Amino acid sequence: MGEQGKGLIILYTGDGKGKSSAALGLLVRARGWQMRVRMYQFIKREGLDGGEHRAARDLGVEIRGLGRGFTRSGALEEHRRCAQEGWRECRLALADPECDAVILDELTYPVGYGWLPVSEVLEAIRSRPAGQHVVITGRNALPELLDAADLVTEMREVKHPQRQGVPAQRGVEF
Amino acid sequence: MGEQGKGLIILYTGDGKGKSSAALGLLVRARGWQMRVRMYQFIKREGLDGGEHRAARDLGVEIRGLGRGFTRSGALEEHRRCAQEGWRECRLALADPECDAVILDELTYPVGYGWLPVSEVLEAIRSRPAGQHVVITGRNALPELLDAADLVTEMREVKHPQRQGVPAQRGVEF
Repeated sequence: MGEQGKGLIILYTGDGKGKSSAALGLLVRARGWQMRVRMYQFIKREGLDGGEHRAARDLGVEIRGLGRGFTRSGALEEHRRCAQEGWRECRLALADPECDAVILDELTYPVGYGWLPVSEVLEAIRSRPAGQHVVITGRNALPELLDAADLVTEMREVKHPQRQGVPAQRGVEF
Repeated sequence: MGEQGKGLIILYTGDGKGKSSAALGLLVRARGWQMRVRMYQFIKREGLDGGEHRAARDLGVEIRGLGRGFTRSGALEEHRRCAQEGWRECRLALADPECDAVILDELTYPVGYGWLPVSEVLEAIRSRPAGQHVVITGRNALPELLDAADLVTEMREVKHPQRQGVPAQRGVEF
């Protein structure tokens, strides 16, 4: 279906909550039209089974974790290796004409840290099949990503419950 | 499930794209945990069958349109009446202990236009069952809504494809 329209590059960035949620919203809309969606999560580890993983599976989408989690901060080399291995999988999706939308959750981090060259990332995105949508999320997006995107929203944090001592809530943040 | 945690009031506002998408993302996460979710769309008319309506139905959620659409701008009284009638339905959901999350998409408009008194809206939200999450979306949220919310993100428009002449794309905006 995506082939009939213009494939957009959508970037949700900024410090506020709602970036990955908005990407999930696109997954919902696209699946409603039977579009084929792949979603990859950088940083987050494989095998997570949060609310989004469970419901996405019910919609026929397997959300793939490519990282080692935010907690294992020591093993920087391992994080880098994971991101680079994961990126190879994302490239395949970006080159796949059977794929109507590719969600690259938290891609801005491995790109910002220099683990993935921004030029290589942009080349893969620019040579994707016509009509394929790409969604990128994460803070501190490099200017090159902002330039390449068709739609950019900055999620600005106005109020955050964790700053008021409220822990992360099931169904909201995971 | 929601009963075990703190029910949050989440407000996605601002001019940028992604507010309703982020609300849909919460619907996904919550449904992944088998939470019972109701979603109401102010302004948008009943019987719409966009991507979000179709996929939400697959997840067991009927998204209810309460409005007359953005296009029929002449009939202001009709818009007001629809919002007030729709609000009665939302109040029932907000009072229902069987309901774990209530999404009030584009509620800021009928409140901002004075069709629904903000004091009445806040009273219904504040007296909801413990643990129930509420999500409100829309531009120009009144300060009273900002004050009441636990989590507020302003979606700031940085780049918008329609300003560059690209029409709304299936799977992205509907």
